[in-house]
Amino acid sequence: MKRRFSPVSFAAVDLRGTFWRERIETVRARTIPAQLRQLQASGLIEPKPNQERHKTDLQKVRDAEAGRWLEAASYALASKPDPKLADQVNAIADALAAAQLPDGYLNTWFIANAEHERWTNLRDNDELYAAAHLIEAGVAHFQATGERRLIDPVLKYVDHIAETFGHGEDKKSGYGGRQGIELALSRLYRVTRDEKHLDLAAYFIDERGRHPHYFDMEAVTRGDETEHFVGRTYEEHQAHRRVRLQDKAVGNAARAVNMYAAMAELAGERGDASLKRACELLWEDVTTRHMYVTGAIGASRRNEGFGAPYELPNTEAHAETSAAIGMAQWAKRMLTLELDRRYADVMELALYNAALAGLSFDGTHFFRENPLASEGGQRRWEWHPCPEAATDIARTIASVGGFFYATAEEGLAVHLYGGGSTIANVGGRAIGLTETSTYPWDGTVSIVLDPEQPTEFTVWLRIPGWAEGATARINGVGTDVAGNLERGYLALRRLWHPGDTVVLHFPMPVTRVKAHPSVLAAAGRTALKRGPLVYCLEEADNPGATPDGLLLPPGARMTTSVRDDLFGGIVTVSGVGTMSRTDWAHDLYGPEAGGRPTTLTAIPYYLWGNRDEGKMLVWVRES
Amino acid sequence: MKRRFSPVSFAAVDLRGTFWRERIETVRARTIPAQLRQLQASGLIEPKPNQERHKTDLQKVRDAEAGRWLEAASYALASKPDPKLADQVNAIADALAAAQLPDGYLNTWFIANAEHERWTNLRDNDELYAAAHLIEAGVAHFQATGERRLIDPVLKYVDHIAETFGHGEDKKSGYGGRQGIELALSRLYRVTRDEKHLDLAAYFIDERGRHPHYFDMEAVTRGDETEHFVGRTYEEHQAHRRVRLQDKAVGNAARAVNMYAAMAELAGERGDASLKRACELLWEDVTTRHMYVTGAIGASRRNEGFGAPYELPNTEAHAETSAAIGMAQWAKRMLTLELDRRYADVMELALYNAALAGLSFDGTHFFRENPLASEGGQRRWEWHPCPEAATDIARTIASVGGFFYATAEEGLAVHLYGGGSTIANVGGRAIGLTETSTYPWDGTVSIVLDPEQPTEFTVWLRIPGWAEGATARINGVGTDVAGNLERGYLALRRLWHPGDTVVLHFPMPVTRVKAHPSVLAAAGRTALKRGPLVYCLEEADNPGATPDGLLLPPGARMTTSVRDDLFGGIVTVSGVGTMSRTDWAHDLYGPEAGGRPTTLTAIPYYLWGNRDEGKMLVWVRES
Repeated sequence: MKRRFSPVSFAAVDLRGTFWRERIETVRARTIPAQLRQLQASGLIEPKPNQERHKTDLQKVRDAEAGRWLEAASYALASKPDPKLADQVNAIADALAAAQLPDGYLNTWFIANAEHERWTNLRDNDELYAAAHLIEAGVAHFQATGERRLIDPVLKYVDHIAETFGHGEDKKSGYGGRQGIELALSRLYRVTRDEKHLDLAAYFIDERGRHPHYFDMEAVTRGDETEHFVGRTYEEHQAHRRVRLQDKAVGNAARAVNMYAAMAELAGERGDASLKRACELLWEDVTTRHMYVTGAIGASRRNEGFGAPYELPNTEAHAETSAAIGMAQWAKRMLTLELDRRYADVMELALYNAALAGLSFDGTHFFRENPLASEGGQRRWEWHPCPEAATDIARTIASVGGFFYATAEEGLAVHLYGGGSTIANVGGRAIGLTETSTYPWDGTVSIVLDPEQPTEFTVWLRIPGWAEGATARINGVGTDVAGNLERGYLALRRLWHPGDTVVLHFPMPVTRVKAHPSVLAAAGRTALKRGPLVYCLEEADNPGATPDGLLLPPGARMTTSVRDDLFGGIVTVSGVGTMSRTDWAHDLYGPEAGGRPTTLTAIPYYLWGNRDEGKMLVWVRES
Repeated sequence: MKRRFSPVSFAAVDLRGTFWRERIETVRARTIPAQLRQLQASGLIEPKPNQERHKTDLQKVRDAEAGRWLEAASYALASKPDPKLADQVNAIADALAAAQLPDGYLNTWFIANAEHERWTNLRDNDELYAAAHLIEAGVAHFQATGERRLIDPVLKYVDHIAETFGHGEDKKSGYGGRQGIELALSRLYRVTRDEKHLDLAAYFIDERGRHPHYFDMEAVTRGDETEHFVGRTYEEHQAHRRVRLQDKAVGNAARAVNMYAAMAELAGERGDASLKRACELLWEDVTTRHMYVTGAIGASRRNEGFGAPYELPNTEAHAETSAAIGMAQWAKRMLTLELDRRYADVMELALYNAALAGLSFDGTHFFRENPLASEGGQRRWEWHPCPEAATDIARTIASVGGFFYATAEEGLAVHLYGGGSTIANVGGRAIGLTETSTYPWDGTVSIVLDPEQPTEFTVWLRIPGWAEGATARINGVGTDVAGNLERGYLALRRLWHPGDTVVLHFPMPVTRVKAHPSVLAAAGRTALKRGPLVYCLEEADNPGATPDGLLLPPGARMTTSVRDDLFGGIVTVSGVGTMSRTDWAHDLYGPEAGGRPTTLTAIPYYLWGNRDEGKMLVWVRES
């Protein structure tokens, strides 16, 4: 069975709510210009071709950074005209086009430094990964501006790749050590509808993990040992077995979920049941054994990847920004296969918490790692030798509207809330939808439907898993939520008239979350959540205490405060707990005597690390 | 400053209380005969010399097993005449004497199999360790029977060792890879008062860890690589640096604490302040960072040794019986340096819990590893290729009276309770002491002093650290406990008349113990203790539940029951808790909803694994 739902493009979504509007504007006004300066300063992006070349390994993937920046900049251009930015984008696009070889090959580092080595080491050189981000940039730029300046060289490059890779005597039967091209080609296919593009994505997905192993064969061709490489094992590359036989999440996490998203995309386009089944098994493994309460994944610093099941350390977490973004991208694709709240709940969780934490409030500082606790001294960086996290969160926020809505033949689904509007194509009719809310700070959401004329269709409204006791009123009349729930979505099928209004109310008490008993790092601890937001204790809000020295009794009454003085206005969470005994250092065992009462105050996790380099904690100790 | 207190020998102590009396009688009647059969069957002990020889590595230390069995049998002979056992002991002693070489060397495996290799690999061959246990057996046999049949060949062997090792051109400047000889020689010195014996112990202690490293030199002499050996690093052997510079517990735990005990012994005999200081620093490290709540040590299965600080896993614990016994032995020596409750508290904890768990209730089955939780399927063994744990717990229980009392010039200290009596030499006068109690089941202890005539001296009575609100009455009159406490001992100095009676009362509520927050394996969990006993949940007492699925609320009222139907009469501990949600497997995060109320029943930890192979748990989850 083919895909049922199609996401509504970022370009068709206008986010008016305060929450995302502010982040999108910050990315446009501050992040994108700052990143261009940083990329230019570090030689990762070049307005002119043929200037001084760089030879480091990280430079090999510079086109990926350039691509992600171009992608973010394209989204920004779509949201607001900006001639200076348009000029900058055009200069870089033109430089890329000028650098392209006659046969279509387009990797600026290899062209400048090692043209003869191109496509000789797919395992380690990440050329296909760099290509992927040029493709994504080309598509975004075309969607945002309608111009062909970037997509034309990209299409030429894709033709070259299609001629180079595949089955057949004159082709290389390889695939990239680092994934990305699979999802990028699917995205290109959505715009071009050229089957060649989807076939190429399918080839890369299906070839992966086949034996004898291409990475071994190309190593032998180069005269290299087959066993010595950075990734160490093919599990790290998710290339240990054919992907549709994979059912356990292994290896580098950001790359894994990017590939899982591409698998879900292909499963939907082709109606591929075995690929869908693999996605479901992998989803089950990741979300029930490897995911942080913030939606982050990739716990292990050793390989920036998945650890053992339930191995989710707090301070030592890797939990990369890009991996959380990848979770949201994967969830978005799973939702096209099946409208099921569990996918949207994780998408929201990852976006509003683990991913968003990667960008500072001021828009110019970044976290690559997003641990759930800090002993202090952790500072967001202005730039990083691996800037992927920075460019990735910029392009994601700039296009976050693309996660909100999806259409099917028979209706329109709303996955996320936060003040968005769109005009969606439902069965050939343009349906306007305007959502008004201050979500996630408040749980009241008003949705006005605007078909051009009265039309019968279904509106599926996600009732978040955390929203116990949610209510809905249609034009002021209460409707039965529980009775109309389809896998967590309130399904409202009726003849909709222009101006029909649904008001949803999601109660947002502060809830306390426990972890599976096998998560040792969360044993005896509780996480505070309100709505989709995970909260954390920071020293700044709890002066005189260290977060790990604060204990919360099981039944503590939690209160909320609207704090306009913090970060432009947020809701904080408080409760009365106690200070832990502080003399443990000389005592391995003893009673946890009742400590001095004190108030614990928590802020949304995504805002941590913006005020100082103090300690932080998500999993609060229970008394 | 030299040692202040001297332990009262096992031979002078009669344990009448039900608790130890039963265990000692079980060891005498069941364990010692069963072990002799097992040792003979596996060729580790031989009533006649020159029978079939064995060549495995484990056989190299068979004299250590023989020595520990002879030691246990000697204690049994002291407690009760047993002509058959005496004949068996004599036959083995005679066989050892017959095997001894003319120069005094006495290792039956090397004599039979590889005489030319003797003393060529001190690092790996454990000859000095085997010698240690022959020495301990010789001393015990002499103390128990007054006979010289075993101690004479031992003394001849010690002369040979003293001629072989030490400084000087004609000597080997080596020491044993596996410790034991240091403590054994100190014990021999206590009986012989021959300075040569203590000098040799001091030599082995001081030579250890000196550079250039003897283990390297002897490897070069053998023509071996210096770097490939079982222990892998000299830290594993506590030979990485001079022992008096060591302040962190590293390596194999049982061997480490045996050495620390020898260091404390030597510090006391010689008034060696720097050695005492090293002992104190190591004690601090072990007891505040590496010790289980049961008194067990040696958490790591990798090296049967100390892990990282606070690394105290439950199901995966190594926690060897012999290491817990070593803790008690070390504590006993620390108490000779300084009468301080913290040493006696750990001694009691290790003896009554971690060590005692090594012997089954029926006396013929053993645990070598003593984890704090079991997923089920763990069965005590009748015999083991490394039977050290079995012979070690037998000799320890058979001589447990030796841990109870100590004398100083000015008085008599009582470390442990449980119905013991002794006649101790205090400043040259014989002082009788008879303690009556059903401790540890009940906290009321009556002590009658019986000097031959009215005598002024001090009685130090340990008030256990757990005994909050302890009271004392002398001849019926209450006395101020807190005001007369010296480092946790109630110091009663007065003119004692024959028949003077002190009645101590130690309240024994069920207490709940928490671990240092860095002990992840105990986070959100509580251990139940009553008096000196640590309790555990077993499936047998909690039908229909798995121990790790039971939650105890923080304020749960705990009750005790005298259960004459269990293990000859014990006290169990119960409280009302809840059954945990059982659907975690498909849910990584969620509320810990209030479960079905249920009663939790716990038994003393030392008795676990005697009824079935069900699950067991010490650290109970808190709700």
